[in-house]
Amino acid sequence: MSEPSKKTALTPATHTTPPAKFSHGVKKGNILQVAGQVGFGPAVEGQAPTPVGPTLREQTLQTFANVRAILEEGGATWEDVVMVRVYLTDTAHFAEFNEIYNSYFADLKEAPAARTTVYVGLPAGLLVEVDALAVLG
Amino acid sequence: MSEPSKKTALTPATHTTPPAKFSHGVKKGNILQVAGQVGFGPAVEGQAPTPVGPTLREQTLQTFANVRAILEEGGATWEDVVMVRVYLTDTAHFAEFNEIYNSYFADLKEAPAARTTVYVGLPAGLLVEVDALAVLG
Amino acid sequence: MSEPSKKTALTPATHTTPPAKFSHGVKKGNILQVAGQVGFGPAVEGQAPTPVGPTLREQTLQTFANVRAILEEGGATWEDVVMVRVYLTDTAHFAEFNEIYNSYFADLKEAPAARTTVYVGLPAGLLVEVDALAVLG
Repeated sequence: MSEPSKKTALTPATHTTPPAKFSHGVKKGNILQVAGQVGFGPAVEGQAPTPVGPTLREQTLQTFANVRAILEEGGATWEDVVMVRVYLTDTAHFAEFNEIYNSYFADLKEAPAARTTVYVGLPAGLLVEVDALAVLG
Repeated sequence: MSEPSKKTALTPATHTTPPAKFSHGVKKGNILQVAGQVGFGPAVEGQAPTPVGPTLREQTLQTFANVRAILEEGGATWEDVVMVRVYLTDTAHFAEFNEIYNSYFADLKEAPAARTTVYVGLPAGLLVEVDALAVLG
Repeated sequence: MSEPSKKTALTPATHTTPPAKFSHGVKKGNILQVAGQVGFGPAVEGQAPTPVGPTLREQTLQTFANVRAILEEGGATWEDVVMVRVYLTDTAHFAEFNEIYNSYFADLKEAPAARTTVYVGLPAGLLVEVDALAVLG
Protein backbone atom coordinates (compact mmCIF):
# COMPACT_ATOMS: atom_id res chain seq x y z
CA MET A 1 0.00 0.00 0.00
CA SER A 2 1.39 3.34 -0.97
CA GLU A 3 0.00 5.63 1.72
CA PRO A 4 0.58 5.35 5.46
CA SER A 5 -2.60 4.00 7.01
CA LYS A 6 -4.39 6.11 9.58
CA LYS A 7 -5.66 4.50 12.77
CA THR A 8 -9.19 5.48 13.70
CA ALA A 9 -11.20 4.68 16.81
CA LEU A 10 -14.77 3.58 16.15
CA THR A 11 -17.02 4.77 18.94
CA PRO A 12 -20.78 4.55 18.42
CA ALA A 13 -22.60 7.36 20.26
CA THR A 14 -24.82 5.01 22.26
CA HIS A 15 -22.02 2.73 23.48
CA THR A 16 -21.04 2.72 27.11
CA THR A 17 -17.55 3.98 27.89
CA PRO A 18 -14.98 1.14 27.81
CA PRO A 19 -13.81 0.15 31.31
CA ALA A 20 -10.21 0.87 30.34
CA LYS A 21 -8.10 2.65 27.72
CA PHE A 22 -9.20 0.65 24.70
CA SER A 23 -11.42 1.39 21.71
CA HIS A 24 -14.68 -0.37 20.92
CA GLY A 25 -13.34 -0.70 17.41
CA VAL A 26 -10.34 0.35 15.38
CA LYS A 27 -9.78 0.81 11.67
CA LYS A 28 -6.30 0.82 10.17
CA GLY A 29 -5.44 0.12 6.56
CA ASN A 30 -7.74 -2.59 5.26
CA ILE A 31 -8.44 -3.98 8.73
CA LEU A 32 -11.36 -3.22 11.01
CA GLN A 33 -11.22 -4.87 14.42
CA VAL A 34 -14.19 -4.88 16.76
CA ALA A 35 -13.37 -5.24 20.47
CA GLY A 36 -15.12 -7.82 22.64
CA GLN A 37 -18.77 -6.79 22.93
CA VAL A 38 -21.27 -7.95 25.50
CA GLY A 39 -24.98 -7.43 26.01
CA PHE A 40 -24.85 -3.96 27.53
CA GLY A 41 -27.73 -1.73 26.52
CA PRO A 42 -27.22 1.86 25.38
CA ALA A 43 -25.30 4.05 27.79
CA VAL A 44 -27.34 5.87 30.43
CA GLU A 45 -25.66 8.90 32.00
CA GLY A 46 -24.62 8.21 35.58
CA GLN A 47 -25.43 4.51 35.38
CA ALA A 48 -22.95 1.62 35.19
CA PRO A 49 -23.13 -0.53 32.04
CA THR A 50 -25.87 -3.12 32.48
CA PRO A 51 -26.81 -6.18 30.41
CA VAL A 52 -30.17 -5.84 28.69
CA GLY A 53 -31.49 -8.98 30.33
CA PRO A 54 -30.55 -12.22 31.98
CA THR A 55 -31.28 -14.54 29.04
CA LEU A 56 -28.85 -15.77 26.42
CA ARG A 57 -31.19 -14.54 23.67
CA GLU A 58 -31.47 -11.00 25.01
CA GLN A 59 -27.75 -10.68 25.61
CA THR A 60 -26.78 -12.22 22.28
CA LEU A 61 -29.03 -9.99 20.20
CA GLN A 62 -27.79 -6.89 22.03
CA THR A 63 -24.20 -8.07 21.62
CA PHE A 64 -24.71 -8.45 17.87
CA ALA A 65 -26.31 -5.00 17.73
CA ASN A 66 -23.29 -3.60 19.55
CA VAL A 67 -20.87 -5.25 17.11
CA ARG A 68 -22.90 -4.02 14.15
CA ALA A 69 -22.93 -0.42 15.41
CA ILE A 70 -19.13 -0.47 15.49
CA LEU A 71 -18.91 -1.96 12.02
CA GLU A 72 -21.25 0.73 10.72
CA GLU A 73 -19.27 3.44 12.49
CA GLY A 74 -16.36 2.26 10.33
CA GLY A 75 -18.38 2.15 7.13
CA ALA A 76 -18.56 -1.65 7.17
CA THR A 77 -21.26 -4.28 7.55
CA TRP A 78 -21.45 -7.91 8.65
CA GLU A 79 -20.72 -8.79 5.02
CA ASP A 80 -17.16 -7.52 5.51
CA VAL A 81 -16.53 -9.65 8.57
CA VAL A 82 -14.17 -12.59 8.08
CA MET A 83 -14.04 -13.85 11.68
CA VAL A 84 -16.44 -13.89 14.59
CA ARG A 85 -15.06 -15.01 17.95
CA VAL A 86 -17.71 -16.25 20.34
CA TYR A 87 -17.12 -16.67 24.05
CA LEU A 88 -19.85 -18.53 25.91
CA THR A 89 -19.82 -19.54 29.56
CA ASP A 90 -21.65 -22.86 29.32
CA THR A 91 -21.47 -25.63 26.71
CA ALA A 92 -25.18 -26.20 27.33
CA HIS A 93 -25.83 -22.87 25.57
CA PHE A 94 -24.33 -23.96 22.25
CA ALA A 95 -27.52 -25.17 20.54
CA GLU A 96 -29.60 -22.17 21.56
CA PHE A 97 -26.81 -19.80 20.63
CA ASN A 98 -26.62 -21.36 17.17
CA GLU A 99 -30.36 -20.91 16.65
CA ILE A 100 -30.07 -17.23 17.52
CA TYR A 101 -26.99 -16.94 15.32
CA ASN A 102 -28.69 -18.53 12.34
CA SER A 103 -31.76 -16.33 12.60
CA TYR A 104 -29.68 -13.21 12.99
CA PHE A 105 -27.54 -13.99 9.95
CA ALA A 106 -30.30 -15.48 7.79
CA ASP A 107 -30.18 -12.63 5.29
CA LEU A 108 -26.42 -12.48 4.73
CA LYS A 109 -25.75 -12.15 1.00
CA GLU A 110 -22.06 -13.07 0.99
CA ALA A 111 -20.24 -16.01 2.52
CA PRO A 112 -20.73 -16.05 6.29
CA ALA A 113 -17.69 -15.27 8.41
CA ALA A 114 -15.56 -17.98 9.94
CA ARG A 115 -16.20 -18.52 13.64
CA THR A 116 -14.52 -19.95 16.72
CA THR A 117 -16.57 -20.72 19.82
CA VAL A 118 -14.97 -21.49 23.16
CA TYR A 119 -16.19 -21.61 26.75
CA VAL A 120 -14.57 -19.24 29.20
CA GLY A 121 -15.24 -17.29 32.34
CA LEU A 122 -16.88 -13.88 32.02
CA PRO A 123 -17.76 -11.26 34.63
CA ALA A 124 -20.85 -12.12 36.73
CA GLY A 125 -24.11 -11.74 34.83
CA LEU A 126 -22.61 -11.99 31.36
CA LEU A 127 -23.35 -15.09 29.26
CA VAL A 128 -21.75 -14.16 25.96
CA GLU A 129 -19.00 -12.03 24.48
CA VAL A 130 -18.29 -11.56 20.78
CA ASP A 131 -15.56 -9.84 18.79
CA ALA A 132 -15.09 -9.56 15.04
CA LEU A 133 -12.43 -8.98 12.40
CA ALA A 134 -13.42 -7.33 9.12
CA VAL A 135 -11.43 -6.78 5.95
CA LEU A 136 -12.35 -3.62 4.07
CA GLY A 137 -12.06 -2.54 0.46
CA MET B 1 -5.68 -1.76 -2.72
CA SER B 2 -7.32 -0.66 -5.90
CA GLU B 3 -9.99 -3.31 -6.44
CA PRO B 4 -12.82 -4.21 -4.07
CA SER B 5 -11.93 -7.48 -2.42
CA LYS B 6 -14.24 -10.41 -2.91
CA LYS B 7 -15.22 -12.56 0.06
CA THR B 8 -15.04 -16.28 -0.57
CA ALA B 9 -16.08 -19.18 1.63
CA LEU B 10 -13.56 -22.02 1.85
CA THR B 11 -15.37 -25.33 2.19
CA PRO B 12 -13.36 -28.51 1.73
CA ALA B 13 -15.50 -31.29 0.25
CA THR B 14 -14.80 -33.72 3.08
CA HIS B 15 -15.59 -31.31 5.92
CA THR B 16 -18.66 -31.82 8.06
CA THR B 17 -21.32 -29.12 7.78
CA PRO B 18 -20.77 -26.33 10.32
CA PRO B 19 -23.28 -26.44 13.21
CA ALA B 20 -24.40 -22.88 12.38
CA LYS B 21 -24.28 -20.25 9.64
CA PHE B 22 -20.52 -19.80 9.52
CA SER B 23 -17.82 -20.76 7.06
CA HIS B 24 -14.97 -23.17 7.77
CA GLY B 25 -12.75 -20.56 6.20
CA VAL B 26 -13.02 -17.20 4.49
CA LYS B 27 -10.76 -15.34 2.13
CA LYS B 28 -11.05 -11.59 1.60
CA GLY B 29 -8.36 -9.31 0.25
CA ASN B 30 -5.01 -10.48 1.57
CA ILE B 31 -6.53 -12.24 4.58
CA LEU B 32 -7.46 -15.90 4.94
CA GLN B 33 -9.14 -16.83 8.20
CA VAL B 34 -9.68 -20.43 9.22
CA ALA B 35 -12.54 -21.07 11.66
CA GLY B 36 -12.03 -23.10 14.81
CA GLN B 37 -11.34 -26.68 13.79
CA VAL B 38 -11.61 -29.77 15.94
CA GLY B 39 -10.77 -33.43 15.45
CA PHE B 40 -13.80 -34.42 13.44
CA GLY B 41 -13.14 -36.99 10.75
CA PRO B 42 -14.42 -36.63 7.19
CA ALA B 43 -18.18 -36.14 6.90
CA VAL B 44 -20.28 -39.30 6.68
CA GLU B 45 -23.75 -38.82 5.21
CA GLY B 46 -26.45 -39.15 7.85
CA GLN B 47 -23.98 -39.24 10.73
CA ALA B 48 -23.26 -36.49 13.23
CA PRO B 49 -19.70 -35.10 13.26
CA THR B 50 -17.52 -37.38 15.39
CA PRO B 51 -13.96 -36.97 16.69
CA VAL B 52 -11.51 -39.43 15.12
CA GLY B 53 -10.50 -40.78 18.51
CA PRO B 54 -10.33 -40.06 22.20
CA THR B 55 -6.61 -39.23 22.42
CA LEU B 56 -5.00 -35.84 22.19
CA ARG B 57 -2.70 -37.08 19.45
CA GLU B 58 -5.48 -38.40 17.23
CA GLN B 59 -7.59 -35.31 17.64
CA THR B 60 -4.71 -32.90 17.17
CA LEU B 61 -3.46 -34.48 13.96
CA GLN B 62 -7.00 -34.53 12.52
CA THR B 63 -7.49 -30.93 13.61
CA PHE B 64 -4.31 -29.89 11.80
CA ALA B 65 -5.44 -31.82 8.72
CA ASN B 66 -8.76 -29.98 8.84
CA VAL B 67 -7.05 -26.60 9.08
CA ARG B 68 -4.71 -27.50 6.24
CA ALA B 69 -7.58 -28.55 3.97
CA ILE B 70 -9.14 -25.12 4.41
CA LEU B 71 -5.85 -23.35 3.73
CA GLU B 72 -5.41 -25.41 0.57
CA GLU B 73 -8.97 -24.69 -0.50
CA GLY B 74 -7.92 -21.04 -0.45
CA GLY B 75 -4.68 -21.62 -2.31
CA ALA B 76 -2.59 -21.23 0.82
CA THR B 77 -0.35 -23.43 2.95
CA TRP B 78 0.88 -23.47 6.54
CA GLU B 79 3.74 -21.28 5.32
CA ASP B 80 1.26 -18.42 4.88
CA VAL B 81 -0.09 -18.69 8.41
CA VAL B 82 0.91 -15.90 10.79
CA MET B 83 -1.11 -16.97 13.82
CA VAL B 84 -2.28 -20.27 15.25
CA ARG B 85 -4.70 -20.14 18.17
CA VAL B 86 -4.73 -23.28 20.26
CA TYR B 87 -7.47 -24.11 22.73
CA LEU B 88 -6.76 -27.01 25.05
CA THR B 89 -8.90 -28.23 27.90
CA ASP B 90 -6.20 -29.29 30.34
CA THR B 91 -2.84 -27.71 31.21
CA ALA B 92 -1.50 -31.24 31.66
CA HIS B 93 -1.74 -31.66 27.87
CA PHE B 94 0.69 -28.86 27.07
CA ALA B 95 3.89 -30.91 26.82
CA GLU B 96 2.36 -33.65 24.71
CA PHE B 97 0.64 -31.11 22.49
CA ASN B 98 3.96 -29.38 21.88
CA GLU B 99 5.60 -32.65 20.88
CA ILE B 100 2.85 -33.29 18.35
CA TYR B 101 3.08 -29.68 17.18
CA ASN B 102 6.82 -29.85 16.68
CA SER B 103 6.67 -33.09 14.71
CA TYR B 104 3.86 -31.82 12.54
CA PHE B 105 5.66 -28.59 11.70
CA ALA B 106 9.16 -30.05 11.48
CA ASP B 107 9.41 -29.40 7.75
CA LEU B 108 8.25 -25.78 7.66
CA LYS B 109 10.55 -23.80 5.40
CA GLU B 110 9.58 -20.31 6.48
CA ALA B 111 9.30 -18.78 9.94
CA PRO B 112 6.75 -20.66 12.02
CA ALA B 113 3.53 -18.82 12.83
CA ALA B 114 3.01 -17.06 16.12
CA ARG B 115 0.83 -18.97 18.58
CA THR B 116 -1.34 -18.42 21.62
CA THR B 117 -2.38 -21.36 23.78
CA VAL B 118 -5.08 -21.06 26.42
CA TYR B 119 -7.17 -23.53 28.40
CA VAL B 120 -10.92 -23.36 27.96
CA GLY B 121 -14.01 -25.48 28.02
CA LEU B 122 -14.97 -27.37 24.86
CA PRO B 123 -17.97 -29.58 24.07
CA ALA B 124 -17.80 -33.04 25.64
CA GLY B 125 -15.29 -35.36 23.97
CA LEU B 126 -13.19 -32.62 22.40
CA LEU B 127 -9.68 -32.01 23.74
CA VAL B 128 -8.38 -29.44 21.27
CA GLU B 129 -9.56 -26.69 18.94
CA VAL B 130 -7.35 -24.69 16.57
CA ASP B 131 -7.92 -21.70 14.31
CA ALA B 132 -5.49 -19.88 12.06
CA LEU B 133 -4.93 -16.54 10.36
CA ALA B 134 -3.02 -16.43 7.09
CA VAL B 135 -1.78 -13.49 5.05
CA LEU B 136 -1.73 -14.06 1.31
CA GLY B 137 0.22 -12.56 -1.52
CA MET C 1 -0.28 -5.62 -3.29
CA SER C 2 2.08 -6.07 -6.14
CA GLU C 3 4.99 -7.91 -4.54
CA PRO C 4 4.81 -11.27 -2.77
CA SER C 5 4.98 -10.63 0.95
CA LYS C 6 7.88 -12.09 2.86
CA LYS C 7 7.24 -13.79 6.20
CA THR C 8 9.65 -12.80 8.94
CA ALA C 9 10.02 -14.15 12.45
CA LEU C 10 10.39 -11.51 15.15
CA THR C 11 12.64 -12.78 17.92
CA PRO C 12 13.90 -10.28 20.49
CA ALA C 13 17.35 -11.24 21.76
CA THR C 14 16.30 -11.33 25.40
CA HIS C 15 13.22 -13.49 24.91
CA THR C 16 13.14 -17.03 26.21
CA THR C 17 12.97 -19.76 23.58
CA PRO C 18 9.35 -20.65 22.73
CA PRO C 19 8.32 -24.04 24.18
CA ALA C 20 7.44 -25.30 20.69
CA LYS C 21 7.96 -24.54 17.02
CA PHE C 22 6.30 -21.14 16.93
CA SER C 23 7.56 -17.60 16.62
CA HIS C 24 7.20 -14.89 19.27
CA GLY C 25 6.05 -12.66 16.44
CA VAL C 26 5.59 -12.77 12.70
CA LYS C 27 5.42 -10.08 10.05
CA LYS C 28 3.90 -10.74 6.65
CA GLY C 29 2.56 -8.12 4.27
CA ASN C 30 0.90 -5.37 6.29
CA ILE C 31 0.23 -7.64 9.26
CA LEU C 32 2.33 -8.07 12.40
CA GLN C 33 1.09 -10.72 14.82
CA VAL C 34 2.52 -11.05 18.31
CA ALA C 35 2.21 -14.50 19.92
CA GLY C 36 0.77 -14.93 23.40
CA GLN C 37 3.20 -13.37 25.85
CA VAL C 38 3.40 -13.96 29.58
CA GLY C 39 5.40 -12.44 32.42
CA PHE C 40 8.64 -14.29 31.81
CA GLY C 41 11.74 -12.25 32.51
CA PRO C 42 14.69 -12.11 30.14
CA ALA C 43 16.15 -15.49 29.20
CA VAL C 44 18.88 -16.84 31.48
CA GLU C 45 21.09 -19.51 29.95
CA GLY C 46 20.42 -22.93 31.42
CA GLN C 47 17.35 -21.77 33.33
CA ALA C 48 13.72 -22.50 32.52
CA PRO C 49 11.52 -19.47 31.73
CA THR C 50 10.30 -17.96 35.00
CA PRO C 51 7.70 -15.28 35.73
CA VAL C 52 9.20 -12.07 37.12
CA GLY C 53 7.02 -12.24 40.20
CA PRO C 54 3.84 -13.61 41.68
CA THR C 55 1.74 -10.44 41.46
CA LEU C 56 -0.60 -9.39 38.67
CA ARG C 57 1.19 -6.05 38.41
CA GLU C 58 4.65 -7.54 38.01
CA GLN C 59 3.51 -10.10 35.47
CA THR C 60 1.40 -7.64 33.49
CA LEU C 61 4.13 -5.05 33.15
CA GLN C 62 6.63 -7.71 32.06
CA THR C 63 4.08 -9.13 29.62
CA PHE C 64 3.57 -5.70 28.07
CA ALA C 65 7.35 -5.24 27.85
CA ASN C 66 7.60 -8.61 26.09
CA VAL C 67 4.90 -7.65 23.58
CA ARG C 68 6.54 -4.30 22.96
CA ALA C 69 9.94 -5.88 22.32
CA ILE C 70 8.38 -7.99 19.57
CA LEU C 71 6.60 -5.01 18.04
CA GLU C 72 9.87 -3.08 18.03
CA GLU C 73 11.72 -6.02 16.50
CA GLY C 74 9.26 -5.64 13.61
CA GLY C 75 9.68 -1.88 13.37
CA ALA C 76 6.30 -1.24 14.98
CA THR C 77 5.02 0.31 18.19
CA TRP C 78 1.90 0.06 20.34
CA GLU C 79 0.46 2.81 18.12
CA ASP C 80 0.24 0.28 15.28
CA VAL C 81 -1.68 -2.26 17.33
CA VAL C 82 -5.35 -2.69 16.44
CA MET C 83 -6.20 -5.54 18.83
CA VAL C 84 -4.99 -6.65 22.23
CA ARG C 85 -6.24 -9.99 23.52
CA VAL C 86 -6.08 -10.34 27.27
CA TYR C 87 -6.35 -13.66 29.06
CA LEU C 88 -6.78 -13.44 32.81
CA THR C 89 -7.36 -16.31 35.20
CA ASP C 90 -9.69 -14.61 37.70
CA THR C 91 -12.52 -12.12 37.18
CA ALA C 92 -11.49 -10.55 40.49
CA HIS C 93 -8.37 -9.25 38.71
CA PHE C 94 -10.26 -7.15 36.18
CA ALA C 95 -10.25 -3.82 38.03
CA GLU C 96 -6.58 -3.99 38.99
CA PHE C 97 -5.63 -5.10 35.49
CA ASN C 98 -7.46 -2.10 34.03
CA GLU C 99 -5.60 0.29 36.35
CA ILE C 100 -2.29 -1.16 35.20
CA TYR C 101 -3.46 -1.05 31.58
CA ASN C 102 -4.51 2.58 31.81
CA SER C 103 -1.25 3.68 33.37
CA TYR C 104 0.79 1.75 30.86
CA PHE C 105 -1.06 3.23 27.89
CA ALA C 106 -1.52 6.74 29.31
CA ASP C 107 0.79 8.28 26.73
CA LEU C 108 -0.63 6.69 23.59
CA LYS C 109 -0.97 9.36 20.91
CA GLU C 110 -3.28 7.52 18.51
CA ALA C 111 -6.54 5.72 19.14
CA PRO C 112 -6.03 2.89 21.62
CA ALA C 113 -6.33 -0.65 20.24
CA ALA C 114 -9.51 -2.65 20.56
CA ARG C 115 -9.40 -5.28 23.30
CA THR C 116 -11.08 -8.50 24.32
CA THR C 117 -10.66 -9.84 27.85
CA VAL C 118 -11.68 -13.36 28.81
CA TYR C 119 -10.97 -15.65 31.76
CA VAL C 120 -9.23 -18.91 31.02
CA GLY C 121 -6.89 -21.44 32.50
CA LEU C 122 -3.15 -20.80 32.24
CA PRO C 123 -0.17 -22.90 33.33
CA ALA C 124 0.49 -22.81 37.09
CA GLY C 125 1.97 -19.55 38.31
CA LEU C 126 0.80 -17.44 35.37
CA LEU C 127 -1.92 -14.84 35.94
CA VAL C 128 -2.02 -13.11 32.58
CA GLU C 129 -1.32 -13.72 28.90
CA VAL C 130 -1.53 -11.11 26.14
CA ASP C 131 -1.26 -11.20 22.37
CA ALA C 132 -1.56 -8.41 19.83
CA LEU C 133 -2.34 -7.75 16.18
CA ALA C 134 -0.76 -4.77 14.44
CA VAL C 135 -1.35 -3.31 11.01
CA LEU C 136 1.72 -1.74 9.43
CA GLY C 137 2.23 0.91 6.81
